[in-house]
Amino acid sequence: MSKITLAHGAGGKETANLLESMIFSRVENRLKKVKGGLGIDHPDDSALIPIEDGKFLVVSTDSYTVSPIFFPGGDIGKLAICGSINDVLVMGGLPIAMLDTIVVEEGFPMDMLKRIIDSMVEILTAENIALIGGDFKVMPRGHIDKIVISTTGIGVSENPIVDLNIQPGNRIIVSGCLGEHGATIMALQHGLNVDMLQSDVKPLTGLFKPLMKHFTNVVKAAGDPTRGGLSMLLNNWAKSSGNLIYVDESKIPLSDSVRKYSEMLGVDPLHLASEGVAILAVDGEAAEEVLEFVRNLGFDDAAIIGDVKKDESFQGLVIIRSEIGGLRVLEPPAGEIVPRIC
Amino acid sequence: MSKITLAHGAGGKETANLLESMIFSRVENRLKKVKGGLGIDHPDDSALIPIEDGKFLVVSTDSYTVSPIFFPGGDIGKLAICGSINDVLVMGGLPIAMLDTIVVEEGFPMDMLKRIIDSMVEILTAENIALIGGDFKVMPRGHIDKIVISTTGIGVSENPIVDLNIQPGNRIIVSGCLGEHGATIMALQHGLNVDMLQSDVKPLTGLFKPLMKHFTNVVKAAGDPTRGGLSMLLNNWAKSSGNLIYVDESKIPLSDSVRKYSEMLGVDPLHLASEGVAILAVDGEAAEEVLEFVRNLGFDDAAIIGDVKKDESFQGLVIIRSEIGGLRVLEPPAGEIVPRIC
Repeated sequence: MSKITLAHGAGGKETANLLESMIFSRVENRLKKVKGGLGIDHPDDSALIPIEDGKFLVVSTDSYTVSPIFFPGGDIGKLAICGSINDVLVMGGLPIAMLDTIVVEEGFPMDMLKRIIDSMVEILTAENIALIGGDFKVMPRGHIDKIVISTTGIGVSENPIVDLNIQPGNRIIVSGCLGEHGATIMALQHGLNVDMLQSDVKPLTGLFKPLMKHFTNVVKAAGDPTRGGLSMLLNNWAKSSGNLIYVDESKIPLSDSVRKYSEMLGVDPLHLASEGVAILAVDGEAAEEVLEFVRNLGFDDAAIIGDVKKDESFQGLVIIRSEIGGLRVLEPPAGEIVPRIC
Repeated sequence: MSKITLAHGAGGKETANLLESMIFSRVENRLKKVKGGLGIDHPDDSALIPIEDGKFLVVSTDSYTVSPIFFPGGDIGKLAICGSINDVLVMGGLPIAMLDTIVVEEGFPMDMLKRIIDSMVEILTAENIALIGGDFKVMPRGHIDKIVISTTGIGVSENPIVDLNIQPGNRIIVSGCLGEHGATIMALQHGLNVDMLQSDVKPLTGLFKPLMKHFTNVVKAAGDPTRGGLSMLLNNWAKSSGNLIYVDESKIPLSDSVRKYSEMLGVDPLHLASEGVAILAVDGEAAEEVLEFVRNLGFDDAAIIGDVKKDESFQGLVIIRSEIGGLRVLEPPAGEIVPRIC
């Protein structure tokens, strides 16, 4: 009898296949009919609902199961709120409201719950986002490991960024060093010392708000490389747009710590989750200007790492030029990677 | 050190106190400022976001942890979808879209997952609701008991029903027999034979859609008595409106099975969850007409069970006239009740 494996939840190939066969293939996008507007045309965490004057609501939901629940740089509460904020931002939305559900284990210390909720409230307050609804459940001891949080982020967008708009000639910009969150959680799960590591979890409002204001229609696609990392995100873009995405590995910003830990843990850093990094596909002619703008916003490690190309032989693939030379196909991650990474 | 108890998750007094101290007291309703419109003024599962021409989006989120996950009348998937549909309906919204997150245990049988998703898809299709986004996570074996589902329902409303509008003179209508879901789950958890029981879980669209069309501004408040049952819902209404709610116990529709099992299990059926029943507070003069209308929609057991009254001495309380005579205060449920009821 077929059973769920950790790989089904890793956000890689197995997750995509499972969701395609069980869900996507069986639900029609009725929103188009209901509202006469733009819905989703491909698997995505966010959806657009037309409201007024050409504006859209951007809605996104995720569940957070990260373990450990406290880690250098944040905790499950901060992760959950930032995750939904960033999912709204990468669709070109400005987050205005949030809903949350908290499912916690009987016997969970009240002071830990307070710390987690403190983190959530702190980010919501700083970002001026209203908490407009939620749910709270307790499961008996042993029925759940500590706590699981789900968040639904709601934003408003005048110019939604829909990943399908990606085109040959676009250039790929990364806003900062990749894999810091994934490396931190993976190292903690392996009982390693993490003094050199810290999760990058943060809201990307400081990047997207000015970017959207200054560069309308220049940003063709945007995403945050969480589960499955840069590799999964670029493979999704290549596949959904039918283009080849070419990446120069030597240009990818990676910290020395993430490099070291990835080597130690035997994992490709391009498969590791970031929780405070954006990937942009921008109009080729404006790419250098956008990069300069992003760096001036304080994203010092931002870099142009590759290009979208039309290529009949390699359409739908990501090709990476290795640091040591030579080209290879960058496969989407498969297998277990890291359980409970986010 | 203070710890989370099952009572904190039971949806009664302890849940209300915990959420008030940890969350509600610490988040401001910023939506009012952001959108200049109507937000939430009191703890509620649903929120209103103004969109265009006086219309509102109605948004609601919940997590479902029910155990067992399959039960007579439904399963956790049907429960999750119906739960969010009904939360939108009771705010006067017509559901148009849904988001879901599924967190499942490693080793969970694939065919069971398929049955659960089948249930979800079946209701969504029948109700013409678009699944516009979601998330799927796997937790390692032993980290979660089988499966937890969160759903976020989105609807549109021209005439939102806000429970604060409840007034003296309103009459209380119940759409059907209470506690069927709660009694079923509780009996299963106690290993009892449940041949006589079946969960009432169903979407209430067939009630609210025609009701909203024919009785604008007549329905002053609406709710579905899930966790904490009729008792919790009426106590919330009494408290938030500052009125006395008077209930005639002999008028409350209860099936013989629920009566028998409640007695056997030593639980007040008014504390048991329903998942396909609506409670309405309607304009007193129209109450008989509304009742007739509701019954003609096929809700044969619908009944007027009580009244909203102005009473200085008992404001904020629910007073029940017992079947055997005499008046008593109907307290909101406290303590554990039933873990994992929804």
